[in-house]
Amino acid sequence: MKQKVVTFGEIMLRLAPEGYYRFVQADTFGATYGGGEANVAVSLANYGFDAKYVTRLPNHEIGQCAINSLRKYGVDTSYIARGGDRIGIYYLEKGASQRPSKVIYDRAGSSIYTATSADFNWDEIFKDCAWFHITGITPALCDNVAELTIEACKKAKEHGVKISCDLNYRNKLWSKEKAGEVMAKICEYVDVCIANEEDAADVFGIKANDTDVTSGEVNREGYKEVASELTKRFGFEKVAITLRESINANINNWSAMLYDGKDYYFSKRYNMQIVDRVGGGDSFGAGLIAASLEGYDPQATIEFAVAASCLKHSVEGDFNMVSMDEVLKLAGGDGSGRVQR
Amino acid sequence: MKQKVVTFGEIMLRLAPEGYYRFVQADTFGATYGGGEANVAVSLANYGFDAKYVTRLPNHEIGQCAINSLRKYGVDTSYIARGGDRIGIYYLEKGASQRPSKVIYDRAGSSIYTATSADFNWDEIFKDCAWFHITGITPALCDNVAELTIEACKKAKEHGVKISCDLNYRNKLWSKEKAGEVMAKICEYVDVCIANEEDAADVFGIKANDTDVTSGEVNREGYKEVASELTKRFGFEKVAITLRESINANINNWSAMLYDGKDYYFSKRYNMQIVDRVGGGDSFGAGLIAASLEGYDPQATIEFAVAASCLKHSVEGDFNMVSMDEVLKLAGGDGSGRVQR
Amino acid sequence: MKQKVVTFGEIMLRLAPEGYYRFVQADTFGATYGGGEANVAVSLANYGFDAKYVTRLPNHEIGQCAINSLRKYGVDTSYIARGGDRIGIYYLEKGASQRPSKVIYDRAGSSIYTATSADFNWDEIFKDCAWFHITGITPALCDNVAELTIEACKKAKEHGVKISCDLNYRNKLWSKEKAGEVMAKICEYVDVCIANEEDAADVFGIKANDTDVTSGEVNREGYKEVASELTKRFGFEKVAITLRESINANINNWSAMLYDGKDYYFSKRYNMQIVDRVGGGDSFGAGLIAASLEGYDPQATIEFAVAASCLKHSVEGDFNMVSMDEVLKLAGGDGSGRVQR
Amino acid sequence: MKQKVVTFGEIMLRLAPEGYYRFVQADTFGATYGGGEANVAVSLANYGFDAKYVTRLPNHEIGQCAINSLRKYGVDTSYIARGGDRIGIYYLEKGASQRPSKVIYDRAGSSIYTATSADFNWDEIFKDCAWFHITGITPALCDNVAELTIEACKKAKEHGVKISCDLNYRNKLWSKEKAGEVMAKICEYVDVCIANEEDAADVFGIKANDTDVTSGEVNREGYKEVASELTKRFGFEKVAITLRESINANINNWSAMLYDGKDYYFSKRYNMQIVDRVGGGDSFGAGLIAASLEGYDPQATIEFAVAASCLKHSVEGDFNMVSMDEVLKLAGGDGSGRVQR
Amino acid sequence: MKQKVVTFGEIMLRLAPEGYYRFVQADTFGATYGGGEANVAVSLANYGFDAKYVTRLPNHEIGQCAINSLRKYGVDTSYIARGGDRIGIYYLEKGASQRPSKVIYDRAGSSIYTATSADFNWDEIFKDCAWFHITGITPALCDNVAELTIEACKKAKEHGVKISCDLNYRNKLWSKEKAGEVMAKICEYVDVCIANEEDAADVFGIKANDTDVTSGEVNREGYKEVASELTKRFGFEKVAITLRESINANINNWSAMLYDGKDYYFSKRYNMQIVDRVGGGDSFGAGLIAASLEGYDPQATIEFAVAASCLKHSVEGDFNMVSMDEVLKLAGGDGSGRVQR
Amino acid sequence: MKQKVVTFGEIMLRLAPEGYYRFVQADTFGATYGGGEANVAVSLANYGFDAKYVTRLPNHEIGQCAINSLRKYGVDTSYIARGGDRIGIYYLEKGASQRPSKVIYDRAGSSIYTATSADFNWDEIFKDCAWFHITGITPALCDNVAELTIEACKKAKEHGVKISCDLNYRNKLWSKEKAGEVMAKICEYVDVCIANEEDAADVFGIKANDTDVTSGEVNREGYKEVASELTKRFGFEKVAITLRESINANINNWSAMLYDGKDYYFSKRYNMQIVDRVGGGDSFGAGLIAASLEGYDPQATIEFAVAASCLKHSVEGDFNMVSMDEVLKLAGGDGSGRVQR
Repeated sequence: MKQKVVTFGEIMLRLAPEGYYRFVQADTFGATYGGGEANVAVSLANYGFDAKYVTRLPNHEIGQCAINSLRKYGVDTSYIARGGDRIGIYYLEKGASQRPSKVIYDRAGSSIYTATSADFNWDEIFKDCAWFHITGITPALCDNVAELTIEACKKAKEHGVKISCDLNYRNKLWSKEKAGEVMAKICEYVDVCIANEEDAADVFGIKANDTDVTSGEVNREGYKEVASELTKRFGFEKVAITLRESINANINNWSAMLYDGKDYYFSKRYNMQIVDRVGGGDSFGAGLIAASLEGYDPQATIEFAVAASCLKHSVEGDFNMVSMDEVLKLAGGDGSGRVQR
Repeated sequence: MKQKVVTFGEIMLRLAPEGYYRFVQADTFGATYGGGEANVAVSLANYGFDAKYVTRLPNHEIGQCAINSLRKYGVDTSYIARGGDRIGIYYLEKGASQRPSKVIYDRAGSSIYTATSADFNWDEIFKDCAWFHITGITPALCDNVAELTIEACKKAKEHGVKISCDLNYRNKLWSKEKAGEVMAKICEYVDVCIANEEDAADVFGIKANDTDVTSGEVNREGYKEVASELTKRFGFEKVAITLRESINANINNWSAMLYDGKDYYFSKRYNMQIVDRVGGGDSFGAGLIAASLEGYDPQATIEFAVAASCLKHSVEGDFNMVSMDEVLKLAGGDGSGRVQR
Repeated sequence: MKQKVVTFGEIMLRLAPEGYYRFVQADTFGATYGGGEANVAVSLANYGFDAKYVTRLPNHEIGQCAINSLRKYGVDTSYIARGGDRIGIYYLEKGASQRPSKVIYDRAGSSIYTATSADFNWDEIFKDCAWFHITGITPALCDNVAELTIEACKKAKEHGVKISCDLNYRNKLWSKEKAGEVMAKICEYVDVCIANEEDAADVFGIKANDTDVTSGEVNREGYKEVASELTKRFGFEKVAITLRESINANINNWSAMLYDGKDYYFSKRYNMQIVDRVGGGDSFGAGLIAASLEGYDPQATIEFAVAASCLKHSVEGDFNMVSMDEVLKLAGGDGSGRVQR
Repeated sequence: MKQKVVTFGEIMLRLAPEGYYRFVQADTFGATYGGGEANVAVSLANYGFDAKYVTRLPNHEIGQCAINSLRKYGVDTSYIARGGDRIGIYYLEKGASQRPSKVIYDRAGSSIYTATSADFNWDEIFKDCAWFHITGITPALCDNVAELTIEACKKAKEHGVKISCDLNYRNKLWSKEKAGEVMAKICEYVDVCIANEEDAADVFGIKANDTDVTSGEVNREGYKEVASELTKRFGFEKVAITLRESINANINNWSAMLYDGKDYYFSKRYNMQIVDRVGGGDSFGAGLIAASLEGYDPQATIEFAVAASCLKHSVEGDFNMVSMDEVLKLAGGDGSGRVQR
Repeated sequence: MKQKVVTFGEIMLRLAPEGYYRFVQADTFGATYGGGEANVAVSLANYGFDAKYVTRLPNHEIGQCAINSLRKYGVDTSYIARGGDRIGIYYLEKGASQRPSKVIYDRAGSSIYTATSADFNWDEIFKDCAWFHITGITPALCDNVAELTIEACKKAKEHGVKISCDLNYRNKLWSKEKAGEVMAKICEYVDVCIANEEDAADVFGIKANDTDVTSGEVNREGYKEVASELTKRFGFEKVAITLRESINANINNWSAMLYDGKDYYFSKRYNMQIVDRVGGGDSFGAGLIAASLEGYDPQATIEFAVAASCLKHSVEGDFNMVSMDEVLKLAGGDGSGRVQR
Repeated sequence: MKQKVVTFGEIMLRLAPEGYYRFVQADTFGATYGGGEANVAVSLANYGFDAKYVTRLPNHEIGQCAINSLRKYGVDTSYIARGGDRIGIYYLEKGASQRPSKVIYDRAGSSIYTATSADFNWDEIFKDCAWFHITGITPALCDNVAELTIEACKKAKEHGVKISCDLNYRNKLWSKEKAGEVMAKICEYVDVCIANEEDAADVFGIKANDTDVTSGEVNREGYKEVASELTKRFGFEKVAITLRESINANINNWSAMLYDGKDYYFSKRYNMQIVDRVGGGDSFGAGLIAASLEGYDPQATIEFAVAASCLKHSVEGDFNMVSMDEVLKLAGGDGSGRVQR
């Protein structure tokens, strides 16, 4: 098994109508589990890493289902605390064509909200750990969890663990101001910063010029400045930014840029027919971590992360169910989708 | 359309694995809606009454789905207030044979919890209303809702509306002590008291002799005293008690007793092969209300209510989807289940 | 392949909610095909006979689906005429416990209604044919089809083909008076008469004493007289009567009696847990025909027919998907339902 | 609630295989309900109008299901007459790529065919009504229904109700000659005429030059003349024509033109990835009615109607399950399909 | 986590039509995984033991699916060897009423057939191990696997591990003679012998008097002699025999007897409504191991094992998804199946 | 019925997750049947030919299901031999966007592997037969089946039957060397050779210049030389080559070339949105055979074959469920996918 990687956050029950049915039409919901950091953990387990997920879940059957969904794919769940009353829920309606996907959160008061330091033995958690990953979603839940996140970062740093953070701004969870304030504190501990084409502007007010995210076109050059400004402000080792061009809910272009404090590396751009868009960013983060831990050079790293997340868009559910080989094959050039037999 | 009947309470999203799958095995959940008082409203709409449901639901798509599930069956939803953050949820796992059904509540903090007097115009609601029905589940949610329930009862009384209450003790929601205290206050306003074979003991400590509810046998005679004692204590006009004998999760015997302050009326006893047991008690309550409003004599009343709820056990979901004709046909004697063609 | 057997009638699209859902709850309908005489044809094909089905179906895809459902199980469909506007439909709601199954017919105006003599080459159809089977459902459709049925019977007789008829009274299709009149004409040609515990009374007013079909008990002895009276009136070679005791919609007792003009043969009685009750009588008729053509003695014949139809009650859909071996094994005594591995 | 709008026509049971399965492959059919005018009613209810649907349905459970499907979405069904023998049916096979969708009608003899004037109290129906909508499908059913339609139009005019009519030519229901003759009579009462790129030619022989509807390209300019000619002939207040360019069964371009007797207003053109194409035209009609009643200017009106119907193509089923807000958001420019969270 | 328990055998892909559909009717198969020894491992993981499963699976996605199905429920899969060409398959058709369930094996040539000693490091596997469980199915596959089984038993004995064996005769896999010969060799190492009411007769010719397994009745007393004879022959520490009485495919009585070389302990007898019968015996074995490791007295042990396996019959799939608490509650007396809420 | 056409090969159980789920996510598999030559037989039956399929299948229910899947669509299955132990299986995971479809074969040791000459009466099979079709998949299974194939070809030639062969190279079944050797022997008997854009290179080392099949572009001109070289080497009457351009797993361009030894005929090129790509080549072969037997000229022949196979890509499952009329309509120019109603 490859290196130990820890991720920390919330895993939710995802309730989604089948296919393209709208909420009001649905009589059954697919019941799967997901959440930004859990998605990263599953990706890393799929790549052969010793992925451990840290969270808190209620001590009932639905909580156990969430754990089982991680165990099934080889994520170590032994650090997960049990307690609290409920599992967070998000309802997902898949968009199509000009109709956007819709997310309804029902996560307030979930078990992670009432977690305390006593729930997590950070020293044991970070022992022999190579990487720690968090996102901007977890501290957005409530002040208590924000503090737990900062505490975890401190502990990780003490143990010499590399830290990555996906800014992942969610405007249904907190204001831009609050986000900017809290994320600035967290970014002090972060080595590798991950963002999408909007996050830096939303959280820190750092904007790319000439880009309108709803128009289906992004100005690649403008993101060089965004990365450089982020690095200047927080001293990141690396900044990676995904560049989504939304033609419509079914068709997106997908690429990314990596900045290592010196050079800018742009990936290939994929034209994607989307199966499930949720978890796309998380699969990029996981690809970046995996490529970094494997010691790939910057261009190979960004190509791996983008190919990994391109494939995610063809997979149902939050989790990116692909292997190293599959990602490397796409990064190496075969996107023709020919049958393998 | 027949008389106006109002019910007040919570309607929840019911998430249940298909067939006899356990929670940990399920990848999809049937997504329907139900709740004690809503179930009564649907039954009454099915019988042709002008059933109106009063509750509070969040102003998002899932809240709308709950409303639509009522509108679909002809319940008037125009008194439903919109607001708050979440819809209550209950997870249901259907039991089989010696394995009991399981319910996990996730209803804390739902929109009804934060309802206020301003959400409901009781004077309009009870105008020209013939009957008001509540259950012991609603006041069990929290003190705020308990007070709203009492307020509604007062208003109903002012408008001369007949009030029925199903004691419906839920030990996952409150203690027996708290239940006894609050329900005693509510019972002051109640005309018709409905209970199952355990409720009077749980809520008011009034026990039937020689009955062990887990043994599959109940002592019918003992319930005469329970009804008489309840009437003595609260001055009810009528007391109706359902008598379930659980052979196992699939097979139950089902009957009931009605006490009108003078005589005791026992119904036929049905041996049931259960399809879905949830909402069985509610369908009994609805049958009792319907028969009362139709002016049936006591024996016909209890036969109607028991036949109605017997049929409910053969119907999937919380709601009792049967018509007056179907109930009358069974009450009149044909339980042979022969194909109608 | 065994002898050639021809059946004539209507095959309908059967639309049925999944499991025990009621019509008003269903968002999908299982779409299968069935009808009394088609069901007999499939059973006989399953037993290895050269079963040929004669009907008329519209020349569109749904008509083709009905044909394919027969071809799939080895029924020869080459005599089926194409034409007319629509396929007959029946909606089926499966009952449970005290709630009966429900059938809604939408078959008026289907392709068979407008069939003419020119659609069927009876001489070719009955060439080398050993048996012809009809039921009381087909002539009930309309006068035109009743005449076609009589014409077919005449032709069959000319070719020396043995004729069986299942009385199969359907009160949603015609009155008892009309049924009695038309069926009397048809019975002139019939050699083997099949009926259930109610048909003889409904069609010809011949009643068994002391039997209330809705009470779950039948008086076996009373049917001796029914069979003898039928034989007296129409000169049947054999009369077979099925005796269903409906405990409820899930549990029935099932047995039958055969009268060969001399002796009365009663079968074993099976206590059945019902999966799908529709087509139960048809599977009995098919069993009787098969056993007769195989040359079984009267007791073996009635045991075979009853075991065959007992198994049908455990099979979803109209068609009885069981083999000779399976029937013989049950008739021979093993109804324990032990796993075969 | 916004203004009262009445629509009149047939609502059918829609039986459709799941996904892209062909009829001959399907073992289950999705069972939903739809029909041109009912689809318009649901759209309008979704926009907050007091939508009332007038039709006739059989007095059995499947008829009730159709009513419930409308009640569920807030359409008032109290004017619906019950009677007759059957509900109309249409079988729908969804096309893909170069394979077209297929519709098989089985609607002859449905309850609406045998409706009479006595079934509908037009004076009550049109009291306080702002708009009446019909389509060319209803009069195509049979002469009786055509007369009822004309009667309704007369009554509507008496009550000063604005009338819109979607020409909606269906060549499986009547000939072009018959259509031209009957529709000409109806158009005398119509204020707002709605048509697709083929209707005017099919019904009235008014053709746009240089357009081949199977080639995936329409000549926008040619439709100016069509609208002007229609107006000249029938004195319409407004004519709206949808312009579908079929690339293949999955991909269409979609736009429309509005003519107010003076100017021609062309909408944006959307490139759509189609989820369900049925009801696309109806959703356009509903959008046009809504925008008109809201008092939008002509350009905003046509943009609203086209955006509404563009969204319909992303929704499963006949009904357009979208809100005013969603339509306005797309009309206002965001068709990027980005996740809303 | 409780003690380490190892089981060794084959895990297969189980392909089964939904509900009660027969093979010839099914268009989809539920795709789950199971096998006698894997089922025991899952049960033990559910009870909190450190259950480890040893087998060999192909190195492709379906092999991985089987592993994931075990990981999901907490079984340690790190000892599983990868290699070979195929996963064993069994097709299962669920019986109902008088129609028995049917199993078709397609397991020949699966990865376990070609396993070698090099695939398993027995010393590591049995380090700190408390119990080793095997069944008569594994050695029945082929001589190679039979030898591997004996090798494993020897190694387990060297490490002082307690060994249990479920005789589990499968007549589709080998003859009674071959079974008797091979199982006799294996039984030399076995401490706890488990059998059903037929196994001892099939494998070793040791018969209970007066018992006909197809008649629905077993002679409890006769099994005392069977257990005593088995103990005499092989020196077992304990013998446990399950006693199934098959009323029909849906209804069975279920009980068992434990013999500890001195006394005979009979359990309660449960009347079961069966959901899924496969894995019933395995869940008994797992219950026996768990109770033994927990140090229960003989009566409590047999009650636990029988209650555990009684519950299994109410659970879909091979695996017994129940907890210690649930089993203890039933063993303690509550089989009423009342809803827990 | 049109001419008799015989195809010979294997039919497998196809197990495929629904929609775009990956293997590791699936809890149910669609269970259909298919295989290169069986697919051709079904297409021809759909076109009205007397299609007969020759293979060997196990004598159990799953074998029977495979037969039924062919009977359902009108293929004559009376030449199919029964015997052997298992049916071949292939697991199919449908790809999307940049993720390719995946096939796992589990066909070794299936009933066809152990077939012998005695299983097939070739003289009867080829009596009055117009065409015999095989593919390169069947001889790839094992030497025994390769010899059977050659034997069949010899017999067909004796009976003057025209022979077509689809090279269909499968690198999971045999090496290129072995394929080249065996196929060269078979091609001696072949009149019409069918290949895709890679087969000739894989099997015989005959390459088209300037073509990279993973780049989404093929060099049409290069295939002229391939066809001419194939003809030179084996004396084929006709060579047909399909030219697939894979943009991604959802979008392909599709066209083909026919060489009649004199001229090269290129078809139109279709841009396809793929529903199910498996069986695409087989449907081309069937189209070619049908057009040839119908006597179409070369251009019409290749247009028919390409239109037929274009439509296949829009149909779920291996079988091409389209009629002559549908193919001719597309070949004639209407690929707009407009609804037919």
